[in-house]
Amino acid sequence: MKTEGLSINLATVRQQWKLPEAVAACAKLGIPYVDPWRDQVAAVGLDTAAKAIRDNGLKVSGYCRGGMFPAADAAGRQAAIDDNKRALDEAAALGAECLVLVVGGLPAGTRDIGAARQMVQDGLAAILPHARAVGVPLAIEPLHPMYAGDRACVNTLKQALDMAGQLGDDVGVAIDVYHVWWDPEIETQIARAGREKRILGYHICDWLVPTKDLLLDRGMPGDGVIDLPRFRKLIEAAGYQGPTEIEIFSAQDWWTRPGEEVLKTCIERYSATFA
Amino acid sequence: MKTEGLSINLATVRQQWKLPEAVAACAKLGIPYVDPWRDQVAAVGLDTAAKAIRDNGLKVSGYCRGGMFPAADAAGRQAAIDDNKRALDEAAALGAECLVLVVGGLPAGTRDIGAARQMVQDGLAAILPHARAVGVPLAIEPLHPMYAGDRACVNTLKQALDMAGQLGDDVGVAIDVYHVWWDPEIETQIARAGREKRILGYHICDWLVPTKDLLLDRGMPGDGVIDLPRFRKLIEAAGYQGPTEIEIFSAQDWWTRPGEEVLKTCIERYSATFA
Repeated sequence: MKTEGLSINLATVRQQWKLPEAVAACAKLGIPYVDPWRDQVAAVGLDTAAKAIRDNGLKVSGYCRGGMFPAADAAGRQAAIDDNKRALDEAAALGAECLVLVVGGLPAGTRDIGAARQMVQDGLAAILPHARAVGVPLAIEPLHPMYAGDRACVNTLKQALDMAGQLGDDVGVAIDVYHVWWDPEIETQIARAGREKRILGYHICDWLVPTKDLLLDRGMPGDGVIDLPRFRKLIEAAGYQGPTEIEIFSAQDWWTRPGEEVLKTCIERYSATFA
Repeated sequence: MKTEGLSINLATVRQQWKLPEAVAACAKLGIPYVDPWRDQVAAVGLDTAAKAIRDNGLKVSGYCRGGMFPAADAAGRQAAIDDNKRALDEAAALGAECLVLVVGGLPAGTRDIGAARQMVQDGLAAILPHARAVGVPLAIEPLHPMYAGDRACVNTLKQALDMAGQLGDDVGVAIDVYHVWWDPEIETQIARAGREKRILGYHICDWLVPTKDLLLDRGMPGDGVIDLPRFRKLIEAAGYQGPTEIEIFSAQDWWTRPGEEVLKTCIERYSATFA
């Protein structure tokens, strides 16, 4: 079994453990990276979370999550910017390699996706100086188009790379195969992301057929229809050598199982994607 | 209230009426077009269906549906081709303006979406001569990426137009805003579709927030987050002058209401998209 290069996004075991227990369980199994969520950190306090990660010798592949830039008025957009700066401070305290950004969807009651996308671009520009100041790069995560309305209006890797290109250094992308596996342009865009040195994160899970819930029915790698070995080849060919993060939201299945079983299954399936 | 140019996809009232009753109800309200599904036609027989449509003076904006080309073996793919030819014969008998194609997803047990897409391209090529012989053009419908696994591996308008471009005349696209509203390239591609004279159908409904089911929770135009007036402008600017078809799958809401209420609401909301 291979654990080198594996990261566990702590949402994967969010129903089983608080952050310190989750981190200790990962370390015990030889998993070298974790990616915690803000609410998991807040539940125990930033200092306790940072200490737990440090004491267990773990690295932090990313911090979930910033973003959510669009808002119906200027005050709402400023509040989002301020909140993202706090997220960057937390990410720096945790030693996270990037801040993962779920950029936000349409402000409630609106239908102008072009305007929402501009708010994202503006929000990114507004927090970038702070990201540079604290040394935490911004990872735009394109989300599956089924989240365009309520979670993220950045829905293709091309779009994320275009946005990053307008901003310059210290902005990149987190590529989650769950969100992009269907994209007819994905080979071209992963190669481009590598060429432009923008790949800050690589996440895997699987697309189940049937998928019973838009948000909380992601599959364990190997249980769905995504060709994970193909994506592994694409990401390696693009020059990416960072961690591979497993992130699974699974209300009816994996969140109901013992955490150690989930982590052991992640290790088995991670190993298999290299086969 | 405006009914000129309105088509009702008969799936919208599939739980309320059989085809002859649905067709009569549409005609009574001054709706000029319908788009029936194969199972609705089969339930009463092709001759009865065709007579009901003809006797009510209705036009047929499309016939749902052909496609489903990918299969695990050559026999399965040939069966799909044969079935599509029968669908074309039925479409011709009904006087349908096109055969709407939901192209199919990954064959069960497979993960090679590139291979599935090639099977679609090959299947289209195989049925095109028959489409020309019976005078029914093929309308490739790009489906939302959330259906890439099990329903359609053609997921963007660009991809559909590229496929059509390889095949020549008598192949076009059906643009359903539900499937493409999120696409950052949609303005460019609708304009291209017009320029290349490929727009064979235009479907509307709405994307609800939250969406509770991947298949059966589409919204009535106006109840969701799609900017329908914007799409109306794009489709008109592309030179499309054909019908606008309302197609709603709604297990928990519209399918539970009286059919006449549903049709009247369709007319109201259709009128509003021109406001």
